[in-house]
Amino acid sequence: MENFEVCDRDIPKSLLERYLASDAIAVDTETMGLNPLRDRLCLVQLCDTKGYSSAVRIERGQSSAPNLQQLLEIPSILKIFHFARFDLATLSHHLDIDVTPVFCTKIASKLARTYSPRHGLKELVKEIAGIDLDKTAQSSDWGNVHDLSDEQLAYAANDVRYLHELSKRLTLMLQREGRWYLAEECFQCLPTFIHLDLLQYQNIFEH
Amino acid sequence: MENFEVCDRDIPKSLLERYLASDAIAVDTETMGLNPLRDRLCLVQLCDTKGYSSAVRIERGQSSAPNLQQLLEIPSILKIFHFARFDLATLSHHLDIDVTPVFCTKIASKLARTYSPRHGLKELVKEIAGIDLDKTAQSSDWGNVHDLSDEQLAYAANDVRYLHELSKRLTLMLQREGRWYLAEECFQCLPTFIHLDLLQYQNIFEH
Ligand SMILES: Nc1ncnc2c1ncn2[C@@H]1O[C@H](COP(=O)(O)O)[C@@H](OP(=O)(O)O)[C@H]1O
Ligand SMILES: Nc1ncnc2c1ncn2[C@@H]1O[C@H](COP(=O)(O)O)[C@@H](OP(=O)(O)O)[C@H]1O
Repeated sequence: MENFEVCDRDIPKSLLERYLASDAIAVDTETMGLNPLRDRLCLVQLCDTKGYSSAVRIERGQSSAPNLQQLLEIPSILKIFHFARFDLATLSHHLDIDVTPVFCTKIASKLARTYSPRHGLKELVKEIAGIDLDKTAQSSDWGNVHDLSDEQLAYAANDVRYLHELSKRLTLMLQREGRWYLAEECFQCLPTFIHLDLLQYQNIFEH
Repeated sequence: MENFEVCDRDIPKSLLERYLASDAIAVDTETMGLNPLRDRLCLVQLCDTKGYSSAVRIERGQSSAPNLQQLLEIPSILKIFHFARFDLATLSHHLDIDVTPVFCTKIASKLARTYSPRHGLKELVKEIAGIDLDKTAQSSDWGNVHDLSDEQLAYAANDVRYLHELSKRLTLMLQREGRWYLAEECFQCLPTFIHLDLLQYQNIFEH
């Protein structure tokens, strides 16, 4: 794949410089499952505003990635996720990274696209970018990081590739509808959800 | 009842002064039902740290209460609720009051009392204050504000009377367990939930 690089354990200094020059970075993670406390982090994907992307292989037992941490914690660069709640929890638990500031395309879609009950990445990319994402590698063995198939790598890259366009289009919709303030408020609540999730608290705000 | 006063439409200036001298105010509301957009606000109860309490009758169609608003919006006085999410939504929708800062004894209880599945006001008052609250007036016709029964008035007063003690005890527990930061974070997310609730958004943070 063009403009795509796989690295081990962290991004090298040269790539860090490259990403630090972008005002927004799209981010995704692949893990062994949906429980961040149980299931290890295998891959972290990044994509800058020019479409340059990387996948960082995380080793079993690895507990930090300093360059990734610097990038993901820097306040001047927006980090765009789809369903940030999950990726933020896994990045916090496994690499001790507190990502900020955050944009979540799933939250933005739920707030903006009140005309649809479907807020999956596939649906969003289809509606907004007109592209049909192949999600067959979604539920696959990401633990085999040194021997990922071409299909898995293509999937990993595609999962971040469209997030910039989605965030831009959803932001415009939210601004048009006078709901952008609400998205900002929701994004600011995300760290609290991550703290609650990692302590396994449930329904704290419900009656 | 001693130290208890019923007022119409708002608290008078003299009572406002009294409440402004307290560093925390316990607050509760009674409404025609559980849907703030449908069900009108009937009564707002207040209680200061010395146990002085009031019930303010709200008229049908009333859309402001300036003294109450000043008190509930003043940043220097903590407002203590049980399940603040509901009362804040109804105060915002009917009287245009944005309550701040807020303590919620239900959230604090869920965070602190992980040993119990019961976080109702009755259970909390029983465990922490050793008092058996009579909740029979809870589901009653509060719309008849000028003709409330003695039982309803006693219920209304009791619903705020123990909140100061609960908040103090729960704060100590949360501090002891290193969870006070989490309660503060949750309280700060409440305005966002109120905005979402009043726009009838659901499950914005869920997958
Ligand atoms: N309960 C859940 N069900 C499905 N996906 C979940 C989930 N909790 C977290 N996720 C994450 O949400 C993403 C899918 O979102 P959506 O269904 O909106 O497209 C998945 O990321 P990946 O696509 O990186 O595997 C998955 O990891
Ligand atoms: N879905 C719900 N079920 C029960 N009570 C609800 C509720 N949503 C909001 N409430 C409010 O939560 C309060 C009860 O909380 P709890 O059950 O924890 O004691 C009630 O206030 P009142 O006690 O002022 O009537 C009620 O108004």
